[in-house]
Amino acid sequence: MTAPRGRPRDAEADRAILQAGLDLFLERGVEGASIEQIARRAGVGKPTVYRRWSNKEDLISAAMETLVADEYGWASTAVSASPYEVVEAAIERAAATAASPRYRALVARVFGSAVSHPELMAAYWRRYIAPRRRQAAALLERARELGTVAADADLEVAIDMMVGAVTYRVLQPAPPDVDEMRRYLREVYRQAGLLPRSDLRAGLGPQPTTDA
Amino acid sequence: MTAPRGRPRDAEADRAILQAGLDLFLERGVEGASIEQIARRAGVGKPTVYRRWSNKEDLISAAMETLVADEYGWASTAVSASPYEVVEAAIERAAATAASPRYRALVARVFGSAVSHPELMAAYWRRYIAPRRRQAAALLERARELGTVAADADLEVAIDMMVGAVTYRVLQPAPPDVDEMRRYLREVYRQAGLLPRSDLRAGLGPQPTTDA
Repeated sequence: MTAPRGRPRDAEADRAILQAGLDLFLERGVEGASIEQIARRAGVGKPTVYRRWSNKEDLISAAMETLVADEYGWASTAVSASPYEVVEAAIERAAATAASPRYRALVARVFGSAVSHPELMAAYWRRYIAPRRRQAAALLERARELGTVAADADLEVAIDMMVGAVTYRVLQPAPPDVDEMRRYLREVYRQAGLLPRSDLRAGLGPQPTTDA
Repeated sequence: MTAPRGRPRDAEADRAILQAGLDLFLERGVEGASIEQIARRAGVGKPTVYRRWSNKEDLISAAMETLVADEYGWASTAVSASPYEVVEAAIERAAATAASPRYRALVARVFGSAVSHPELMAAYWRRYIAPRRRQAAALLERARELGTVAADADLEVAIDMMVGAVTYRVLQPAPPDVDEMRRYLREVYRQAGLLPRSDLRAGLGPQPTTDA
């Protein structure tokens, strides 16, 4: 993948291509989104697309990042903060993202293509998921030192339980709105040990009162 | 839905219809599996299909059950058994099911259609998932009495974390084989409190040695 060259026109074309790639993927799935269709909808020529992305899996996985980019925001927080503060600070944005119809559509499309088009999941995993799992594992390790994660817990499984719960929940009948998603995320993090039970939250500063 | 009438020919047609429905769904998704195609592949007329199922969502969700029917087997176990024994006794079959390529394909198809065809997820939820969630909640309540599930844990979230982890895991790159799935399921159940940590397992009788 070539880095955008920084000229306004290139940046604009990049944005249009990623937007078209995301829209077509959400509308039609990976089978229904060809480089040709993406180029046409973005209003650029196919060579412009191929100059940046060598295949549609890379393009679509880059496009997906524009929707979910930093919905957890766990990377940007100071290392000195407690893991609970890092998680708490990220809940509002995570809830807004996870409760949105486009996030639900994205999860359905990515999961739906995982067996028939494993290259897309593989590209997304490499680009987006793997680095975020490393952040989550680091937070779980710090929570383990604080005693809310079991000493012998497999952290990869713990991450699957958190991500799996949220992605499964949004595909169920009657998906949550933002308020319910905020409550849901807190409960997921508590059960995983990434937030303390309520009697331990005194040290977190002012809390939203949305917690049941 | 009409109950099968019990004549051998009806039972045979039912089986052929469900098999064709499952195969077409796994191959092509819900969009690609019409009642007409299912009838043709099953070698029966459309009226024979419609006599039993009023729409393809009901048919496909019934067909899915033939693949996953009792993979957890939590219903059939004596109420007097400990919840840990019930879970332990079901792991072998659950691991075999969850590690199979057809199960992975099923999860991808069901999740993949959840947003574009919510009626299928709704029918599957009603027929298959909801009763099994009630069994899982009952087990979690018994585990809570034994102290391995937190007193204030939301059990619906705990169920999502278990099911979500497994369904998410099988869609990831490098899906588990049966041995790894067995280990994985045990770790999921331990983290959810449906199996005790290893130092508490003395009461479970002879254990397989596959545990890491």
